[in-house]
Amino acid sequence: MDVKDVADRALLPDEASITMLQAESRSPMPHLAIDIGGSLIKLVYYSRNGDWLPEDNKIWSSKESLGVSNGETNHPLSEGRLHFAKFETSKINDCIEFIQSKQLHVGGQHHEVPSKNKIVIKATGGGAFKFTDLFKEKLGILLDKEDEMDCLVAGANFLLKAVQREAFIYMDGQKEFVQIDHKDLYPYLLINIGSGVSMIKVDGDGKFERVSGTSVGGGTFWGLGRLLTKCQSFDELLELSRVGNNRVIDMLVGDIYGGTDYAKIGLSSTNIASSFGKAISVDKELEDYNPEDISRSLLRMISNNIGQIAYLNALRYGLKRIFFGGFFIRGHAYTMDTISVAVHYWSKGEAQAMFLRHEGFLGALGAFTSYERHGFDDLMVHQLTQLCPRRESCSEDILHSAPHRDVNEEKTIDCNVFTS
Amino acid sequence: MDVKDVADRALLPDEASITMLQAESRSPMPHLAIDIGGSLIKLVYYSRNGDWLPEDNKIWSSKESLGVSNGETNHPLSEGRLHFAKFETSKINDCIEFIQSKQLHVGGQHHEVPSKNKIVIKATGGGAFKFTDLFKEKLGILLDKEDEMDCLVAGANFLLKAVQREAFIYMDGQKEFVQIDHKDLYPYLLINIGSGVSMIKVDGDGKFERVSGTSVGGGTFWGLGRLLTKCQSFDELLELSRVGNNRVIDMLVGDIYGGTDYAKIGLSSTNIASSFGKAISVDKELEDYNPEDISRSLLRMISNNIGQIAYLNALRYGLKRIFFGGFFIRGHAYTMDTISVAVHYWSKGEAQAMFLRHEGFLGALGAFTSYERHGFDDLMVHQLTQLCPRRESCSEDILHSAPHRDVNEEKTIDCNVFTS
Repeated sequence: MDVKDVADRALLPDEASITMLQAESRSPMPHLAIDIGGSLIKLVYYSRNGDWLPEDNKIWSSKESLGVSNGETNHPLSEGRLHFAKFETSKINDCIEFIQSKQLHVGGQHHEVPSKNKIVIKATGGGAFKFTDLFKEKLGILLDKEDEMDCLVAGANFLLKAVQREAFIYMDGQKEFVQIDHKDLYPYLLINIGSGVSMIKVDGDGKFERVSGTSVGGGTFWGLGRLLTKCQSFDELLELSRVGNNRVIDMLVGDIYGGTDYAKIGLSSTNIASSFGKAISVDKELEDYNPEDISRSLLRMISNNIGQIAYLNALRYGLKRIFFGGFFIRGHAYTMDTISVAVHYWSKGEAQAMFLRHEGFLGALGAFTSYERHGFDDLMVHQLTQLCPRRESCSEDILHSAPHRDVNEEKTIDCNVFTS
Repeated sequence: MDVKDVADRALLPDEASITMLQAESRSPMPHLAIDIGGSLIKLVYYSRNGDWLPEDNKIWSSKESLGVSNGETNHPLSEGRLHFAKFETSKINDCIEFIQSKQLHVGGQHHEVPSKNKIVIKATGGGAFKFTDLFKEKLGILLDKEDEMDCLVAGANFLLKAVQREAFIYMDGQKEFVQIDHKDLYPYLLINIGSGVSMIKVDGDGKFERVSGTSVGGGTFWGLGRLLTKCQSFDELLELSRVGNNRVIDMLVGDIYGGTDYAKIGLSSTNIASSFGKAISVDKELEDYNPEDISRSLLRMISNNIGQIAYLNALRYGLKRIFFGGFFIRGHAYTMDTISVAVHYWSKGEAQAMFLRHEGFLGALGAFTSYERHGFDDLMVHQLTQLCPRRESCSEDILHSAPHRDVNEEKTIDCNVFTS
């Protein structure tokens, strides 16, 4: 496979633009950070010169955001982008080939490769430990390991502060962006749904505690889903759920009560009493169920469960805001709807789920922001415009239309970089 | 199938004996209550004359417990038993045939059948609504519907007050009975794991609130388990889990971290990061996994999840005691161990799971106690001895050895009934 070709085809412009302060004059920007999870590898890398910017994006960026102040000094702008890509962890060699082909580990400088021993790349996730030797052997780079939770929190804080229209609520098929007041951001509960789920109480920059989690997460959906449907990819399984009917497999309150509600305790006849409870029937085998229905039932079970446990933890710590991220979600309507309804239901309308547009890249972004020399600390305080002049109309479309490929996917955030 | 034969073969003496006050002189005891859930029908019925008592039990009962006082009056004793039986809801006709063959709906009186219209039986669970017409048509009886939650709570309160050595903790393969101080019983959290799961905060007799629940319960285990393993019964699936190894299918922290712990947040390498997370591997299909391993992974996922949500709800309401019941548990060591460990883990040792020996019959017992005329109210206040002289040594054996058949199973509680 020509990985470079795949990457190029997958290059998807994203609508958010970030104005960055580069703290050290003319020092080279680090170009790559990596988050290696149980199922997926997430890359964030930076291009300074906008080589891959579509022409119309370049026009927008040149029109806006010049001369933004950090409160002390004005800096000239230089244009850049953050790119996002992902690979399956099981195909880590494709990822390494991708890095190699773009020379990301040496700042994209094909002509000037530094001594191999000196290349250090920020990395997080368990795979940063597991694959240390592989990266050294294949690319000659050292993985500078950053704590997974540190990175998730740093990534979420970065996005919530630096990117407009990052957080949104989703209910009844409608998405509504939430204006985040930076002074009133903390505390919040961050739910990162990867293979497993981490629940983190965030009290400030670098101030957090992993208060809970569950092993019933994205790996469960994909693992059980593969066994039950023979789907070949996570996204194929997810896609099936759009047209499935979980009532074929789930046992509803009405199935037990003969079609009536159990009104006394607030359960309607359509509430799920038992996920997969109808599959106890001896009349049907696995082959007799539609994969679409199985997928939908599975997705609903897992999303609802995560929403419930998340809410209980938010309640425990008196947290009003719950942000859901992680690559399980993938902007999928039914997933977000189920999580939202779960939080709404269990909180009796007191709490609301919020989602993050760059949901899957929290850890990788956090690792990227951990490079001391690129001035991301300032970025978090100053910041940010959106380049796309059509953003009011197009942002939702872009989010919805962005396909998630299993082999590789790339999104970008345009960056206007101050250079001193 | 000769249902009566099955029932007779399944007659299992239980070690607990209950001394009951009969409130109305010589009025006939109601003989049957029924709890029809999504997957199982549970029967509790009473025999006054000890017809089915094994000879040695009769000897013990005649030696003990005579002349127990209710604080006001002494009553002579007459011997009786509570019997427990279950059927799959899908085989409700077997249940009806069983009731018919034993004439349970008319107090076992083959010779004196009252007018059909006058026979009213206490019933609870959703099926009491769903199958009203069927019972009327086949047995000519009216189901007097009692609220499901009312019955669960009444049944649990009854057992916790009336039966010694009912509640126990389970940890590291060891069972330890808990002495319940009746004056310090409330409040507690009752977790009933049937097809789905109800979580009820109990504050007293008839004082309770269903505070939570989850659709991931016994129906999920059996439904998903059937689809994944082709097992023919719940108990076959449960049995498989004894010898399974969930690490073949679950993604552990060590699988992600290359064999090491993620010590900073207290996750050891053997913690499950993602249930069924290893099944995302493209190298293996469903047929390549052992049913034993699948069963164990599934059981662990569900038991752990219930334990976690239960604890979070106990914490929410400041409840120290959590009792787990319902027919999902079945005295199964791995289930109880997983729930216990989950509660211990998430509470950091602050809370402890407790189990009930008559776990599956809470609703049916509650329905039985709702007959006004049999004086169960007094029973709850007065009480109960245990007949079996070998109880210190034999109770655990009996609990462990009691098989749970899918077609039908019968357990008994011996009763010494006061007659005035």
